[in-house]
Amino acid sequence: MTAAPETLTPVQARQAFRGGLRVPTSGFSPGFAQANVLALPRELAFDMLLFAQRNPKSCPVLGVLEPGQVSSALLAAGDIRTDVPAYRVYRDGALVAEPDDVVEQWREDLVTFLLGCSFTFEAPLRAAGIPVRHMDLGVNVPMFRTSRRCEPAGALSGPLVVSMRPVPAERVADAVRITSRYPGVHGAPVHVGDPAALGIANLAEPDFGDAVDVPDGWIPVFWACGVTPQAAVMESKPELAISHAPGYMLITDLPDAELQVP
Amino acid sequence: MTAAPETLTPVQARQAFRGGLRVPTSGFSPGFAQANVLALPRELAFDMLLFAQRNPKSCPVLGVLEPGQVSSALLAAGDIRTDVPAYRVYRDGALVAEPDDVVEQWREDLVTFLLGCSFTFEAPLRAAGIPVRHMDLGVNVPMFRTSRRCEPAGALSGPLVVSMRPVPAERVADAVRITSRYPGVHGAPVHVGDPAALGIANLAEPDFGDAVDVPDGWIPVFWACGVTPQAAVMESKPELAISHAPGYMLITDLPDAELQVP
Repeated sequence: MTAAPETLTPVQARQAFRGGLRVPTSGFSPGFAQANVLALPRELAFDMLLFAQRNPKSCPVLGVLEPGQVSSALLAAGDIRTDVPAYRVYRDGALVAEPDDVVEQWREDLVTFLLGCSFTFEAPLRAAGIPVRHMDLGVNVPMFRTSRRCEPAGALSGPLVVSMRPVPAERVADAVRITSRYPGVHGAPVHVGDPAALGIANLAEPDFGDAVDVPDGWIPVFWACGVTPQAAVMESKPELAISHAPGYMLITDLPDAELQVP
Repeated sequence: MTAAPETLTPVQARQAFRGGLRVPTSGFSPGFAQANVLALPRELAFDMLLFAQRNPKSCPVLGVLEPGQVSSALLAAGDIRTDVPAYRVYRDGALVAEPDDVVEQWREDLVTFLLGCSFTFEAPLRAAGIPVRHMDLGVNVPMFRTSRRCEPAGALSGPLVVSMRPVPAERVADAVRITSRYPGVHGAPVHVGDPAALGIANLAEPDFGDAVDVPDGWIPVFWACGVTPQAAVMESKPELAISHAPGYMLITDLPDAELQVP
């Protein structure tokens, strides 16, 4: 790839990933929503959609590809089996592969869920002068399993997974206000302050992503995270599940602006 | 029944309906959400939930009862088979009965969807001094099939159904603003003004409910309506579907206040 990530259209970015580029998608195609991906067999599709309906903060549904469908208006001229930079394949709840595409693993009965990603609200946070620490440090956002349980649905259950962003104390209210305008990408925080209240023992040891420090005078703020359904897959052990690799998202054609509510 | 409808708690109202009371629910248990009801066989449950996800203005999901479940936190100590004042039973898309309960018709594989109802936003409209014409006239709200198609999902497709409330021209903006705060009960209007743009030939001949006049200087305003899934049932012809009778809603324990967004 010669072009810079921030100059690629979503179609160009998906083509690059289809061609074999394997990099995290932070910074790609600014202004367009990136999505968490989870494909499950049709027999679990109702349970997953119901899990999302009951846990809308962690699982905000941007779109669903029905069985046999590998493209949609969210990924025009795209192919969900190849257009994500890196995938994870789970069998019976165990991670068995992290391939560049899932053409071999694909089945006609798979239903694909595209869920909103907090990358969308990081831009308006920064535009408001609120530092996004993990971006300033050039690392992935830290994510934690919590002791809080999701509402189960059918065969699916699991813990709430959260992302953590430290925010200067005097900007916490603004961070709440700004992110609450984006319910389609996790919305307002689920918790502000003490990590122990969520069962998080040590902020320096995230379950996914990279550790980020909390400077003096800053407060850890926790948002529901799109990795939550992957945690449900690990716990509920469906025979097959395919997801994106954390941080390696699907870049959609959906403008971030359409996700903002008044 | 000796108690007045507006003094009954949701539990008391459901008990009265279970006991045989068959009346429209407008005015019952003010402050608590009333719900559209649709039960479908398990094999159609994913399609219905996806239909709702793709058509959120007409099908805002308040809750789902899984197969075998006849109660939930939305109807504490309740029974979805008996607690609605009047039901409709559809077989292969045709209305075949309007019973007081559906104990005989019930099946263990039925999944019940509870969808928000615009009754919730009529109270704040009136509180803001915006007249709600059909209430002032003491009739049911007029509802119309439109020429606008819903986004289909699997085996389910159908037209958008709307409710119409005439609003004084100078209050239309306020009506939009107030109802947009209630996305869980259809939210902002889908159309303001000319009925012909929605394929509605004659406001005096609603497809459901009662006709309401549009006084001089008032504008017809159209909101997506929870009868939309019943229209999809009529068109898509599942072997069995059970719904409430229009206007005879389920009274839930959900406070209207929880449905308001900032």
